Formats: sequence, C-alpha cells, structure tokens
Amino acid sequence: MQPIKEFEKIVGAGNVFSSLADRQTYAYDSAVLESVTPALVVRPTNTEQLGAIIALCYKLGMPMTVRGSGTNLSGGTVPDSPDSVVILTQGLNRILEINSSDLYAVVEPGVITAKFASAVAEKNLFYPPDPGSQAVSTIGGNIAENAGGLRGLKYGVTKDYVMGLEFYDHTGSLVKSGSRTVKCVTGYNLGGLMVASEGTLGIISKAILKLIPPPKASKAMMAVFKDVQNAADAVADIIAAHILPCTLEFMDNVTINMVEDDVKIGLPRDAQAILLIEVDGHPAQVADDAITVEAQLKKNNATEIVVARDAEEKNKIWEARRKALPALARRRPTIVLEDATVPRSKIPAMIQTVNEIAKKYDLLVGTFGHAGDGNLHPSILCDRRNKEEFARVEQAIDELFNRTIEMGGTLSGEHGIGTAKAKWLEKETTKATIEYSRRMRLAIDPKRLFNPSKMTSI
Amino acid sequence: MQPIKEFEKIVGAGNVFSSLADRQTYAYDSAVLESVTPALVVRPTNTEQLGAIIALCYKLGMPMTVRGSGTNLSGGTVPDSPDSVVILTQGLNRILEINSSDLYAVVEPGVITAKFASAVAEKNLFYPPDPGSQAVSTIGGNIAENAGGLRGLKYGVTKDYVMGLEFYDHTGSLVKSGSRTVKCVTGYNLGGLMVASEGTLGIISKAILKLIPPPKASKAMMAVFKDVQNAADAVADIIAAHILPCTLEFMDNVTINMVEDDVKIGLPRDAQAILLIEVDGHPAQVADDAITVEAQLKKNNATEIVVARDAEEKNKIWEARRKALPALARRRPTIVLEDATVPRSKIPAMIQTVNEIAKKYDLLVGTFGHAGDGNLHPSILCDRRNKEEFARVEQAIDELFNRTIEMGGTLSGEHGIGTAKAKWLEKETTKATIEYSRRMRLAIDPKRLFNPSKMTSI
Repeated sequence: MQPIKEFEKIVGAGNVFSSLADRQTYAYDSAVLESVTPALVVRPTNTEQLGAIIALCYKLGMPMTVRGSGTNLSGGTVPDSPDSVVILTQGLNRILEINSSDLYAVVEPGVITAKFASAVAEKNLFYPPDPGSQAVSTIGGNIAENAGGLRGLKYGVTKDYVMGLEFYDHTGSLVKSGSRTVKCVTGYNLGGLMVASEGTLGIISKAILKLIPPPKASKAMMAVFKDVQNAADAVADIIAAHILPCTLEFMDNVTINMVEDDVKIGLPRDAQAILLIEVDGHPAQVADDAITVEAQLKKNNATEIVVARDAEEKNKIWEARRKALPALARRRPTIVLEDATVPRSKIPAMIQTVNEIAKKYDLLVGTFGHAGDGNLHPSILCDRRNKEEFARVEQAIDELFNRTIEMGGTLSGEHGIGTAKAKWLEKETTKATIEYSRRMRLAIDPKRLFNPSKMTSI
Repeated sequence: MQPIKEFEKIVGAGNVFSSLADRQTYAYDSAVLESVTPALVVRPTNTEQLGAIIALCYKLGMPMTVRGSGTNLSGGTVPDSPDSVVILTQGLNRILEINSSDLYAVVEPGVITAKFASAVAEKNLFYPPDPGSQAVSTIGGNIAENAGGLRGLKYGVTKDYVMGLEFYDHTGSLVKSGSRTVKCVTGYNLGGLMVASEGTLGIISKAILKLIPPPKASKAMMAVFKDVQNAADAVADIIAAHILPCTLEFMDNVTINMVEDDVKIGLPRDAQAILLIEVDGHPAQVADDAITVEAQLKKNNATEIVVARDAEEKNKIWEARRKALPALARRRPTIVLEDATVPRSKIPAMIQTVNEIAKKYDLLVGTFGHAGDGNLHPSILCDRRNKEEFARVEQAIDELFNRTIEMGGTLSGEHGIGTAKAKWLEKETTKATIEYSRRMRLAIDPKRLFNPSKMTSI
C-alpha cells in the first residue's frame, strides 16, 4: 500500500493533505528560517489516531513534526525534511473537563490557549499563562515549548500549570505521567520532561492543567521615562521592594513610535522607554502595591504615571503592548525577535548591551518584553535578502548571546531552541549535558524521527 | 589498589567509613523495610569529589545510594546490596548564595531544609516547602523525592521551587540544567526530570531555588468536629469557595488522642476530627479569608472554632500537628505511614474508605495529613514481627491503593516510590510508561548503579 493510503486508512481521506499548495502551507512557522515542504500533512481527529500515525511513521521511517498553530519563533514546527509528515493537532481540540472543586482542567493538545482561558474564566477560575500568541497558539504547542507570557513574573509559565500529561511514544503506545492530584510523585516526572522538549520525545495527546482562583482586583498603569536606564532601574527596584506585579513590561523608544504609528492611542513619542505595569490580588493588596510601585517609579524619575481608571483605559494600555510585535514586524521585510533572558537585576545592563550592539552593527533594533522576568525581546528589523545586512544581524545575535551568558542569563527564556539556537546550547551548559540529553533522546526515539532536526546538538 | 584506598584517595581517610558499626548506621531509613548493610560509606566534602566517587563506583561496578538525612519513607535511601556504597551529602552543606534582588538561592545538596528556610527568612524572603522532616531533612533529599509539606496547597511542593540543578552523570561529568533566570527553555528540562527521580538518574551537586516575598500576615485556627465526614466536607467547601489556605490539615480521633496523651495541650479528646487551618497574605486578605473559612466550618457543623490570638497560640496549634507522627509512632512497634492522594473533592470518600479498610482488616489506623491537597497519611499501627497481623496490613495497603486509583488518585503524593511501591506503578500508569522510563533509565545509567533497586519496575 502507498504511504498516503495507509495514512488515509487511519484518519480518513479528508484528513490527509498531499497537494503542493497544502504542503507548502505547513513548510514554515514564525521563525526566520528556510522553509521545508513536507511529504504529507495529516490531521488526526482522536488521540488513538495519533498513536497509529506515530506507529506508521516509525514503520515507514518518516520524520514527524507536530504542529499546533505554527506560532513558534525558533523553528520548532518547521518540517525536518521533504520526507517529513506534519501532524496537525487542530482536530484534537476538545476541552474534556474543567473541574471547579479540584481546580484543574483536562484538555487535548489542539485547544487554542485564549479559548481555553476564557472557558476557564467563565467558570470563575483562572489559567494564567498568556503567551503573546495566545489568540492563536495551542496548549500542546505551549507545553512543547514551555511558553511564557506577560504574567510569568507573578504566576509562572506553562510548566508551572502542567499537573499531568499523556503522550504517545515511538511505538504509538500511550504514556501517562502525573495526576489530577495536587501532589504526585508516582514514577519519573515525565510530564516535566516533556515540557519544552519541542516534540522530540513523544507526542502529547492530553494535558491535566492546574487552575487557580482568579484575583479579585487589579490595577494597570503606564510610566514614562526620558532615560532608558531609569526605566530599567525602576524594574529592579520594584522587585527588590518585594512587589511581584502580575505584569511588568518594557517598551523602548523605537517600539513606542512604531506602535503609535499603527494604533494612535497617544503614546509619548519622545519617551525613551515606558513601563506597563499591572498589580493584582486582594483589593487592599492591590492598593498597597500600587502605592509602592508608584514610589519606585517616581524615585527613578518617571516623568509621567498614567493609572487606568477603568477597564477601557486598562485595555488601551495592554493594547499598546500587544501591538508591539506586529507594529515592529510591519516595518521591514524581516524581523528577528530575540529572547535573551537575564536575572532581573541585570535588566539595566542588558538594555545597555542591546543598545551597544545595535550601534556597533548599525542595526535597527526595537526592544520590548517581560522586563520583570529579565526576559526581553530585542527585535532586529532587517531584510533577510540583503546578505551584507543579514551577516551583521547574525554577528549581532552571536554577540548578544555571549553577553547574555556572561551576565548569568540564558539563550532562551520562552521561545525555545528549535533549529535557531541549537549551536549555542553547549556554551550555556556543559558537554556532558549535551551527551546526557542525547543518550536519553536516542533511547526514547531510536530512529530519531520525532522532530529530528530540532535541538540538533542533542 | 583496594577499593577502600581508592575512595580514600578521593575524599581522605577521615571520610571513608568501613567499620561494621558505621556501615550498619546507614543500613536503613525511615521506611518499614529490611535493612541492607552497605560495603562502604563515603562522605565527599566538595562536589568535584562527588564526581570522582561516581566515576570510581562505575569503574568498580559498585551500586550507589545517596543519603541526606535518611528521613525517606519509601526506602529511597536503603542501600541496594552488600556491595553498595552509601554517599553522604552532609559534607556538601553550603548555602552558596541568597540573592534578594533576583529572588533565588544557590545551595549544595546537604543543606538542612529548616536551616536553609531560616537563612532565607533572615533576609526577609520565603522558601515555602516544609516537609514534616524539615528539621533534619536535606534539600538534596527533598529534590530527589519531590518533598511536599504542609504548605503545598497554596505554595506548591519542592518541584515548584527548583529553577536549576547541577548533577553528575554516570561518568562523573557535570550536567547543568536551568538557570538563575525566572524563565529558561534552554535544552531539556533535566532539572524537572531529576525531581522525584530518587537518585536513579544522577547525583545532585547544586540547586538553584526560587524564593518569594514572605506573606505579610497570617491567621491560624482549629476547628472541632463530632463527625469526621463533616470535617472532610468542610475541606472541600473551603477550596470550592476559592480560598487557598497556606495550610489545611486534618487529624482524626485516634491521632488527636495519641497527640494529647503525649503533649497535653488540651485537644478535644471526644472530637472525631479536627482541622488545623492557616491563611496568609496581605492583612486584609487574611481577614476576609478567615471569615469565609469560618463560615464554611460552621456550615459543616464545626462544634468549636479556636482562632489563635497570638504567636504562642499559633505555635500550640502547629505543635499538635507536628506531634502527630511521633505520637502515633510511639504506640506500637511498627508504624506504616501511607501517602495515598486523591483529588481534593474526594477527601470525604477517602476518609470513609480508610475507616472501612481499618475495620475490615481489624487494624488500628490513625489518619492525619494535608487534607487541602487531598494528601492524607493513614498510619497503620502494628507489629511487623507479628506475621498474621502484618499480612493483614499488607492486604489493607493493597486495597487502599486500589481504591485510591479508582478515585482518580495517586499512589504517592510526596513520599516517593522507592522499593515500597514499585509494584503498583504500572497499575496507575501504563505498560508503555514503564517501558519508556526504563529505556531512559538504561541509557542514562547503563550499568544500573544509581540506586538500582529503587522504582524496581522501571
């Protein structure tokens, strides 16, 4: 039987896509990388089909790349080769349970993050992880990449909400880890291992996610700075004052202006930086925290502090932040969105470093991101087709990562390693770390068919 | 060269223990299991020595069991065979850094949990995990077992505080995972994998632990019930009312009486159950939460609610809870302390199940534990030397685990699998889960010398 027929036998003819147009649609993701057109695209509609697809791919020796919505920024969802099968999770999109008494939910991997978060909110519960791509990203992708988001500072990232996982191994058999219970130490923490493994250790079919009671109140504010270092110092001072805002975001002058060009909401065009801050919790705590935050902002020479008076004004503040990436992305043909992350107190040094590197390599860089997590996204606006310019971009990134590691930081806070950053892995860890991971990966995936060219050094 | 000389060459003669008396001291831990006297006991005093010891054990084919303070309740620190080397971490006991700006600490594995928590508190920060054995247990042991504690409900368990780990692999080379940054997705989450791996995947040499700002206020109370099911229902109702107390503990009549026999603090001897509750956070939130908690307690027919008016009264309440295990343990020659865990809303059913099983097998069972986590410790008081009685104990445990799994629960909330629970692992997960874990373990530890008889089915 032809491979395509075998796949059709599992998922039905309507869920196997083999035309060039269909295959090209899944040849790339949101990372700036060469596209690779896969051999086939398959869409299982139940998890048993997922297991059967894996077993078939293994029999046929075809590499598998699982794809949620393709919002990945490090190439995790770019197919590995022209022999690849792209497995879509969009047909596995059921919210199976939202349990109010026990504060957990059970979902399939293709559930859209924001849809899930609102279904949870309707039950007066809270699922905090909110990656920038949440309106389209999937829970499965969030887990495979350990997606962060704007609320990481106070509420943690996707990893912190995975209580249990089910996934299929290379034989197409079901592996279960974790539990519906808050505490569980039964066997290895395979759910923890799967988080951020980028589809290289198995394919997720179900997740048990932790929910929490929602905060009762919140307050959002915007602070304007004439000096970018003042803004950075304010971030460090807020944390040092023992305030953990749920969100503490940074935008530099380049980003402010491009956002304002697009959305015209009256952002201060001459500001060198703005901080967007939200505190939440019990109303009295919110009031107290807001006072402390304002004091730290003033101490660091904020020239203006705008406190949102209602939901509409609050939305306006977050609208500005949400528009940062699209506004920057529109400006030049290519945007290289970086993800270097440092301990929070190094944010001032990090911002200085980014600006030095931008100047040295004569590049237009807009920086924004999760300042409270030490996780900034310096975004290089360029044109990939301009070889001379792109060579400078690559040099700049090299230098950025070296400096980040020197500052005690990490290559990737929340975007993953994929193909984009594999070569730097050993520098941050050790040779033995790579060897350990590689032995483990080979034992789990002996033919190396699970997203084989991701984390290539492993 | 004799093995003993080779070890002495690494750690010095004063740190190798080979007398029978010394070896017998490390032949058992806190689990009710046969003791196994090891061949040698070795105490490295720096992490490089730890790497060298592993390489030597691997060369000599000697199994390794790492031991912090031996408080393990599932046999994780019982040596595997008379050829075993017990590696003590007590010489690796430095707190290397407590970073107030970035809210993390770096410690060696032999640091005592409570000592670490107070060093952190002195800097006005907070390390929440507080296993019952914290006064003697070590951070390395807490990580290897993913220790829980009384604060799990609101603050999570050890796993939730591990930002990064360093450990040695089977060649004695250093593996690094995670970072000093809040977000990190650089490579596999090996730190997450090591948590709860019970010394079977490598030996931890350093941990980066997350710290948080301490709560500003707290309020402790004790509620008395004539009916055990009322107490259980109150637990479920408190969580359903969206209150997450930092602690929500349960003690049944047997436990209450044995504690009162010992400490004479005026516990209500005729109560069928008491709940010990603490809420913490912003003062206004504490006040509000306490009102909601009291309302739920009254709704469920609490006959008395005692609110601690000061630190002394609060200590008295927690003293009662801390004495539960020692008071029960003193009563009969053997105490089998179980760790079955269910989703929180199943606590009423769980308590009923425990009582039914105690009656059916005619056993004296005292039950206490972390009701808010669904994590109870039914403790069977017996005499291991009485074969007939102990056979009933084993049948009772079998039935307890079967019923726990039927209720959607887990074999072990916080005490681990060790040798005690290995045989039940597959029942809770799948055959493929065991196979997956076994392939991984073999790749990481090809001679199976890392605590080989722990999680035996893997």
